[in-house]
Amino acid sequence: MSKKFVNKVEDTVDDALFGLVSLNKNIQFCENSNRVIHLSKFNSKNVSLIAGGGSGHEPYAAGYVGKGLLTAAVAGNVFASPPSRNVQAALEATKSKAGAILFVINYTGDRLNFGLAAERFNASGGNAKVVTVADDVAIDNPNSRVGRRGLAGAVLTIKIAGAMSDQGKSLDEIYEMSRKVVSSLGTLGVSLYPGSLPGKSRETELSNDEIEVGLGIHGEPGKFRAPYECARKIVTGLMGTIQAKMEMKKEEKYVVLVNNLGSVSQLEMGIVNGEVLRWFDSQRISIARFYSGTYMTSLDGHGISVTVLRADDQMIEYLNAPAEGWTPALPLGKVSQVTSKVTDIPSSGTSLNSQLVKNCLDDVIQAIAASQEFNEKVDSSSILKALEKGNQAVQKYGGARVGDRTMVDSLDAMVEELKKGLDQNGGLDVFERAVQASVKAAESTAHQTATVGRASYTSSQSQTKPDAGATAISIWLRAFWEAFKQEMGKK
Amino acid sequence: MSKKFVNKVEDTVDDALFGLVSLNKNIQFCENSNRVIHLSKFNSKNVSLIAGGGSGHEPYAAGYVGKGLLTAAVAGNVFASPPSRNVQAALEATKSKAGAILFVINYTGDRLNFGLAAERFNASGGNAKVVTVADDVAIDNPNSRVGRRGLAGAVLTIKIAGAMSDQGKSLDEIYEMSRKVVSSLGTLGVSLYPGSLPGKSRETELSNDEIEVGLGIHGEPGKFRAPYECARKIVTGLMGTIQAKMEMKKEEKYVVLVNNLGSVSQLEMGIVNGEVLRWFDSQRISIARFYSGTYMTSLDGHGISVTVLRADDQMIEYLNAPAEGWTPALPLGKVSQVTSKVTDIPSSGTSLNSQLVKNCLDDVIQAIAASQEFNEKVDSSSILKALEKGNQAVQKYGGARVGDRTMVDSLDAMVEELKKGLDQNGGLDVFERAVQASVKAAESTAHQTATVGRASYTSSQSQTKPDAGATAISIWLRAFWEAFKQEMGKK
Repeated sequence: MSKKFVNKVEDTVDDALFGLVSLNKNIQFCENSNRVIHLSKFNSKNVSLIAGGGSGHEPYAAGYVGKGLLTAAVAGNVFASPPSRNVQAALEATKSKAGAILFVINYTGDRLNFGLAAERFNASGGNAKVVTVADDVAIDNPNSRVGRRGLAGAVLTIKIAGAMSDQGKSLDEIYEMSRKVVSSLGTLGVSLYPGSLPGKSRETELSNDEIEVGLGIHGEPGKFRAPYECARKIVTGLMGTIQAKMEMKKEEKYVVLVNNLGSVSQLEMGIVNGEVLRWFDSQRISIARFYSGTYMTSLDGHGISVTVLRADDQMIEYLNAPAEGWTPALPLGKVSQVTSKVTDIPSSGTSLNSQLVKNCLDDVIQAIAASQEFNEKVDSSSILKALEKGNQAVQKYGGARVGDRTMVDSLDAMVEELKKGLDQNGGLDVFERAVQASVKAAESTAHQTATVGRASYTSSQSQTKPDAGATAISIWLRAFWEAFKQEMGKK
Repeated sequence: MSKKFVNKVEDTVDDALFGLVSLNKNIQFCENSNRVIHLSKFNSKNVSLIAGGGSGHEPYAAGYVGKGLLTAAVAGNVFASPPSRNVQAALEATKSKAGAILFVINYTGDRLNFGLAAERFNASGGNAKVVTVADDVAIDNPNSRVGRRGLAGAVLTIKIAGAMSDQGKSLDEIYEMSRKVVSSLGTLGVSLYPGSLPGKSRETELSNDEIEVGLGIHGEPGKFRAPYECARKIVTGLMGTIQAKMEMKKEEKYVVLVNNLGSVSQLEMGIVNGEVLRWFDSQRISIARFYSGTYMTSLDGHGISVTVLRADDQMIEYLNAPAEGWTPALPLGKVSQVTSKVTDIPSSGTSLNSQLVKNCLDDVIQAIAASQEFNEKVDSSSILKALEKGNQAVQKYGGARVGDRTMVDSLDAMVEELKKGLDQNGGLDVFERAVQASVKAAESTAHQTATVGRASYTSSQSQTKPDAGATAISIWLRAFWEAFKQEMGKK
């Protein structure tokens, strides 16, 4: 069973909704259902906007209840459509003279339950319309009876409708615009690891060299599997499919939304965003607005989706309108300017070669605050002075002393050995002995207890090996010394 | 090797920074280093604020460069301190008459490299001070030479300092306030799965029934391991330790920051937030401001940390000040009000018992839009009419027809069998036969191809089993029928 921050598995949705509602005084549970959340104060002259579906897609939908976005949301169990009576409760709780729109992301269960709720609501004097969002371009035939699957494009649809409702637009106006938005959307998802359900094991069906392309948001299989590749190739493939379906053109305006399916690290999101930008730049298609974040998840799925909206000025204006809990579009710069600047990317590889050693030496000379010493003629005594100063700096800022089980132990052993040797004018062999002394000092840290340095934060059981910092220093000194001898041999 | 959205492993940091800078026209790379990012326009009369350290903690630190937050950030390789010369480059690039503050999260390497940079900067006429954030309460002795480890408390420190700089406060004022904030902070982290480095395997050292408590943000071991428990117990234990170190009192004000260490799902974050709120409520300690989100990560670590700041009114005012890229505190409601409302949490367990079957029946009756039919005297023909109407609704909203490999197949088979049987006045046996017909129809979907429904989105290779929806319907009908017979037997 996968570990998760949950209580009783069957309480998962209710516990999460409790957290959401407790943290937002502007929203509340519906009187008749704690699976329905609505604005505490809403303008009954404005069109009510309601969305929902199975849970596990947070912040969608309940996280978007706020002024300028949704009036209410209906939450089902994880990945299960909410019962029709709860949708009806949301309609009743937010009943407005101006009418209501139900936003359904296109899955059969939701279409059924939301559709029936609207029918009953309208039969009892209400005025609700249903907008079905179907933006998944992985589905080949958008004209089939069920149409495309609904994905993160729903978020842009709701943002635009929310701004319109806030501005007092009519039911028909919002309905028509929403349908226009839906027909201008395209989304494609890709996943490295599927999400896992509370109380269930992590799915391992996807092998370590495969990715799932064109997937939905319920952990179901994608349209196909592809070999795992680098981010640039994944994004290029994904954008290629979107482009084939959307036929984007240079003279048009596009809104882009990069969505984290749940557990992609922020570091990776930065890379994905950059690659999406590069793709648009390479196609010379301009981006009007760029959103990136966690909008519609598949629990803790390690995947992303990219949504593209062919937008007109009106849509962009509605997207720009402020809304509660909505983060504005990122203040997009010019990609090509940034690209041209980033040319001298420093290598951070780990293979040891003499260039790397030279770079390391530069860093060390900087780090040990000893550059003044090296400005003069470089001789053995100035090297020694520099190393001593370096040791002092490490001890001053690091707080470590000899015997504290840190890099200081191996550094100090080296310096002491050098001092002894240079006093006796021992030639280059002195350096060999100094390196050996450092290695020995590092090894002996295995028998000490850390009181400072990174290892001091861990339990003493895990301190049975030589200290990593001290070892690294001794290894580095050895590598540097070997490279230095090679260089000297070439001369 | 773990799959990640990266290109060449050694380009990871630079690729992510490219994405960050390209998406924010208010920031730029430093002329002399593409590992230093600073505001494109900054007020040289205000104190410059600089933070940084190893990468892998995004959005910390580069994601906080913005008006009202940081003036510059310095990024090292993943989990590695940046070279001192890059810190110096940041100081030079944002040199201000008012001076500069370097914020260091307390790790030896960062203390060294930032400390040396400040020394050199000051030696050449600059005026920089260093604030070391050390907020980890897992470390037992805060008065040791190295002090506590630095964690997410740095984010609140920077927010407060950023507002002060923005308002033109002096170097000494900001420095003193920052030190006061640091001494009023306490943070504790807990992890279910550690994050994994690009190009490395996922760490599996932590077993499936253990959690790591009091961990840092580099995947290093925690202070101790504890058995995996439910979210409430984890949060209670964590808050208990923070309380023991912080000695929170009812008459004081506290700011709380719940931090996602990288890959915790939004569903879980809602639960964790709720449990933290419940804990404060149970202790009758009030929360002045509540933040929750992804502030300082450990790559894709599946863990959280909670930071508590003992705040005064001035700190809260500075936290409230708007800043670029900063999400305001959540609009906290009253927990106890919400708690009292959530009493009738519906069960969502999966065990089949007659109560559940009754609930299901209620749902079905609702779902099939047939409640009008049942308002009259319930007889066999009204049941049949209701079921026929239900079938029509499912087909209308689902778009499926008989033979499309969906639940419609098993529903239709049942209704047809019922119709036949009731015409012949077959008694209760009719229902038995109807259930059997449904089961048979479900089984035969294995030989059909899905064109609608959820299975239509997946490749046809994965459609070799009977359709899940049709099977579910037939299983449910069987369970309902058995329960119904039992109930009838009791009367």
